[in-house]
Amino acid sequence: MEPNASNNMQPDNCLEITPMEVHKVVPPPHRSTIQKLKSKLKETFFPDDPLLQFKRQPLGKKWILAAQYVFPILQWGPNYSFKLFKSDIVSGLTIASLAIPQGISYAKLASLPPIVGLYSSFVPPLVYAVLGSSRDLAVGPVSIASLILGSMLRQKVSPINDPLLFLQLAFSSTFFAGLFQASLGLLRLGFIIDFLSKAILIGFMAGAAVIVSLQQLKSLLGITHFTKQMGLVPVLSSAFHNINEWSWQTILMGFCFLVFLLLARHVRKKTVNIPVPSLCSSVICLNFYMVTCASQSMRKPKLFWVSAGAPLVSVILSTILVFAFKAQHHGISVIGKLQEGLNPPSWNMLHFHGSNLGLVIKTGLVTGIISLTEGIAVGRTFAALKNYQVDGNKEMMAIGLMNVIGSATSCYVTTGSFSRSAVNHNAGAKTAVSNVVMSVTVMVTLLFLMPLFQYTPNVVLGAIIVTAVIGLIDFPAACQIWKIDKFDFVVMLCAFFGVVFISVEDGLAIAVAISIFKILLQVTRPKTLVLGNIPGTDIFRNLHHYKDATRIPGFLILSIEAPINFANTTYLKERILRWINEYETEEDIKKQSSIHFLILDLSAVSAIDTSGVSLFKDLKKALVLVNPVGEVLEKLLRADDAREIMGPDTLYLTVGEAVAALSSTMKGQSSSYV
Amino acid sequence: MEPNASNNMQPDNCLEITPMEVHKVVPPPHRSTIQKLKSKLKETFFPDDPLLQFKRQPLGKKWILAAQYVFPILQWGPNYSFKLFKSDIVSGLTIASLAIPQGISYAKLASLPPIVGLYSSFVPPLVYAVLGSSRDLAVGPVSIASLILGSMLRQKVSPINDPLLFLQLAFSSTFFAGLFQASLGLLRLGFIIDFLSKAILIGFMAGAAVIVSLQQLKSLLGITHFTKQMGLVPVLSSAFHNINEWSWQTILMGFCFLVFLLLARHVRKKTVNIPVPSLCSSVICLNFYMVTCASQSMRKPKLFWVSAGAPLVSVILSTILVFAFKAQHHGISVIGKLQEGLNPPSWNMLHFHGSNLGLVIKTGLVTGIISLTEGIAVGRTFAALKNYQVDGNKEMMAIGLMNVIGSATSCYVTTGSFSRSAVNHNAGAKTAVSNVVMSVTVMVTLLFLMPLFQYTPNVVLGAIIVTAVIGLIDFPAACQIWKIDKFDFVVMLCAFFGVVFISVEDGLAIAVAISIFKILLQVTRPKTLVLGNIPGTDIFRNLHHYKDATRIPGFLILSIEAPINFANTTYLKERILRWINEYETEEDIKKQSSIHFLILDLSAVSAIDTSGVSLFKDLKKALVLVNPVGEVLEKLLRADDAREIMGPDTLYLTVGEAVAALSSTMKGQSSSYV
Repeated sequence: MEPNASNNMQPDNCLEITPMEVHKVVPPPHRSTIQKLKSKLKETFFPDDPLLQFKRQPLGKKWILAAQYVFPILQWGPNYSFKLFKSDIVSGLTIASLAIPQGISYAKLASLPPIVGLYSSFVPPLVYAVLGSSRDLAVGPVSIASLILGSMLRQKVSPINDPLLFLQLAFSSTFFAGLFQASLGLLRLGFIIDFLSKAILIGFMAGAAVIVSLQQLKSLLGITHFTKQMGLVPVLSSAFHNINEWSWQTILMGFCFLVFLLLARHVRKKTVNIPVPSLCSSVICLNFYMVTCASQSMRKPKLFWVSAGAPLVSVILSTILVFAFKAQHHGISVIGKLQEGLNPPSWNMLHFHGSNLGLVIKTGLVTGIISLTEGIAVGRTFAALKNYQVDGNKEMMAIGLMNVIGSATSCYVTTGSFSRSAVNHNAGAKTAVSNVVMSVTVMVTLLFLMPLFQYTPNVVLGAIIVTAVIGLIDFPAACQIWKIDKFDFVVMLCAFFGVVFISVEDGLAIAVAISIFKILLQVTRPKTLVLGNIPGTDIFRNLHHYKDATRIPGFLILSIEAPINFANTTYLKERILRWINEYETEEDIKKQSSIHFLILDLSAVSAIDTSGVSLFKDLKKALVLVNPVGEVLEKLLRADDAREIMGPDTLYLTVGEAVAALSSTMKGQSSSYV
Repeated sequence: MEPNASNNMQPDNCLEITPMEVHKVVPPPHRSTIQKLKSKLKETFFPDDPLLQFKRQPLGKKWILAAQYVFPILQWGPNYSFKLFKSDIVSGLTIASLAIPQGISYAKLASLPPIVGLYSSFVPPLVYAVLGSSRDLAVGPVSIASLILGSMLRQKVSPINDPLLFLQLAFSSTFFAGLFQASLGLLRLGFIIDFLSKAILIGFMAGAAVIVSLQQLKSLLGITHFTKQMGLVPVLSSAFHNINEWSWQTILMGFCFLVFLLLARHVRKKTVNIPVPSLCSSVICLNFYMVTCASQSMRKPKLFWVSAGAPLVSVILSTILVFAFKAQHHGISVIGKLQEGLNPPSWNMLHFHGSNLGLVIKTGLVTGIISLTEGIAVGRTFAALKNYQVDGNKEMMAIGLMNVIGSATSCYVTTGSFSRSAVNHNAGAKTAVSNVVMSVTVMVTLLFLMPLFQYTPNVVLGAIIVTAVIGLIDFPAACQIWKIDKFDFVVMLCAFFGVVFISVEDGLAIAVAISIFKILLQVTRPKTLVLGNIPGTDIFRNLHHYKDATRIPGFLILSIEAPINFANTTYLKERILRWINEYETEEDIKKQSSIHFLILDLSAVSAIDTSGVSLFKDLKKALVLVNPVGEVLEKLLRADDAREIMGPDTLYLTVGEAVAALSSTMKGQSSSYV
């Protein structure tokens, strides 16, 4: 096994590689620990180098840039024109027509008074218009965050028995959600939301859509005694155990409006012919619904207005119907009296102590991260469509501050909404002014139009929610995932079934845990490839991939495809020993030479730790290392027994050079033995 | 940026690379999903391929091999000779002389009756002799597992007020520890113990040594009212608040024996001159103490007997002293009456239900994993010294079964002990028969010699423990870690201070969490290297490492050094865009050409997932991919928009070929434009 033992060599059959100049492996330029730490921190937290634009600028310009960095409105504001405003006012009014019914519906989903949904569509959009950098994001309450907020708080406090406390907890959760979001941005820890992978999001969204739709059975069937649980089983059993409470008038009305809303959606969908893949391969998970309506505006503008206006039309129509037939006395439940007026202050309602603090922080954390993911994903997708950049960490600060301010002005968790942003983009929004227009419209509604909603039936709000969330189920993307990566598909199913059968938070947690486990498994079980020479070249590639690659007799060439660390040192040792074993058994049968050199190609080993360093010593073979990268080489040299690991002739720059140099040594030795 | 836009090229200054033959990138040979899953599972769970030896054997031989696999005693038993037995009997008696006082001491450390320590030195060694594959492991109770078992159970049950329940819980914990250990081995999940890295173990051991030593203050100072907590602060404050309880007779006696034992250790240490590194770079953490005594036996055999026999001599001497001076009436506490007889059965004492089940399972899990780590580490180290293989998963089953059987025969958690195994090896043990000899000696003690221990003072047991655990503090290894990897050093400190100031379990958990976080950070923040050409060759290496490497104008060549997945897609996108930005800013100043091609070297990308696939589409550059490995290539091809990502001329086998081929295209185009 040692090079000295190479007395059964067949010098004739070996190598087609011509001897060549050997290039030395040099240690990387010296850097102090501080320099290394600094560069490491920069790579970790500032991959996008936000300060790059400040370089080589005069001081005055730097101040202006800094102000523009914090308030993006200063960047686009000065160039704002009447032409842009015309576009923005149309899109603003359009999203307002969606935001009002959805705001009321989502607030009910969160077990909050309907008016809080409108409050939340008034202040946050104004804040976002000043701080946000996306031009298409339509800000306001969203279904999933509402669902989670409601379901988490209901576990401890009943919104019916103690509505004031429930409201206080909701605002406090919003505060912590905002605080958490802003801190993530400020500390540049935005990568935490990256752990919600595309597969997880698709599964999670679909599961949440099912849960949200099931919750609407209460209003769609007109049931008064409904379970407080969220899971599929308790909700269905609750719905069917209270069959005596079903109200045919409600069911009829709900059915009609549901059909109307779904038809409006369907009309829109049919006109679409963009290919599915362009949606599936987008950076971040986006639902079919959104992209379809986003890309279709150029084609059938009239049909688009049908679908965008359908929710408001339903609300108006159903309200008139109820009012005309006095249907509220015939089993159809209505929203009831809503107070007029703008958002009352709510900072005195925030809870920073007491027994519910833990619950409030936990709720804030979960809703914060979920709504952040939605907001950032939507922002990035439209930025990609219109080809501008959205800085993730900056967006997090904007969304976070929006929620902190919101929590002090009677708003609950808000973010960029999937569906409304698509409509916004679609209706031709140019800047965040469309949010301002929407906000003003909601303000007018709050001030003067609230009595009109008194007779709006709950069943129509339920139908609006079902129509909105049904688009979150993205079958084509699920198929695409199945096609590309089976494991991702399993993760997606876990997220889906976890949400549907266990709970929203647990489903999400399970899926994230599985994803992280997969990463850890990749690290603990790194690939080792056996390399062979591609004939006529000095290229070495995986023997099991390139069938024309051939083994060089006497050499076992392995490429390690991961950082070597404590978690995989033992595995790598066992795996390499097995390669040697297999090689020797194989060669034994073929009566060829045994291994003289074990060459490890370290090109793909990006890092190493103290446990990893010991691997090379334990292998105890005539070990040759090829192309260790800077950090790895440094650590190997720093080990006290560096000379043991890396004697002369054990470090080469390429596999080709190593093989060429070593086989000439081998020939020399074997001839001297003969 | 597009190749078509290359009208400002300087065809003269570019490339020193001669055009060469271009080799095609081919997709890997087709395998079905089942085949892939099978090979993946094999790579993950059977890196060492335990079935390899069964291949190409007749059926009868296979049965024999299988029996030998399960009972290694069948492998070495038939060849056992009287010569081997002579060695084993000497080493067996030597470790028995250590095991008896240590057994009693460690049982007290776990708040169990002293006799349980002796029981645990009788049955488990016999079981291990049949099942275990290490030839040097000396099996029995160990300090750290005893400490953890005692401290975890004491949190809920008092060993003084409810000794029977405490004993039941200890046996039940042992059962679950064994069950857990055996399952890890059976399910081939042994890699879980790899997460306790060398750095963690060194910090943890040192912390545990401090905690264990502090616990001995009770017996060393003769205090009767001592805190039940483990932390540094409560223990010290308890010791100094009870100054009135200090007994000068106990302190004097303890001091004398401590000095004697430390001197015996010191004598041994001084004779040693093996270099430190050989210990530090061993696969697994091993303490200075052990290796020193292991390697020194050949040099000063007489001095070795001094240190190996010191504990037993101390016990005998102190017992005689107490008996002679009736010191038990003068403030020196003694063990007291111990009942004679062999292990009583204890399977009826196991708890599988009731309120303490959770505690018992948790305790079993923690002690199980810790004692497993110690046992496997010791086994592997001595196997490496004597150059034989120890199968980790098999050892886990052996240790697990040993504990399951132990829990039914009044034994608590046992494993291979660091210190006694070293002495065993040192005294010339050849096979597991030395464990049998030890076991028989303990049996004789249990049957006939128990009354002799009646007057053994607790203070001497304390001194024996302190001397044993002090060797667990491994300064040279800590220095070595500081030298090689600063982050590992921080992890080590966290483990140490966590154990000393918080608790044994939490300290360990914190250190493991930090280590895993580091791995995740490596995955979320993968390295991207800019490659340059090493002049006169077609080798491309990191520009910031090899100073003579030069950029090829018009090309930005990046190497991605990690699997691309959901957790790093966003980061990679941002980081690559920053490289492009920086390159363009730089080139702008130098008035050179802009980037025509972005070449991504994917050699080091060992895997990709659905999110990762989308990265290539989002980059939207004239993207060229080099050497994607099998799995990555397959997934890229399977994406619906494969053609978008990989048009013609965008896949090359080496960077050199890509640059050569593309620059000739570029020249052709620019000349056609001129």
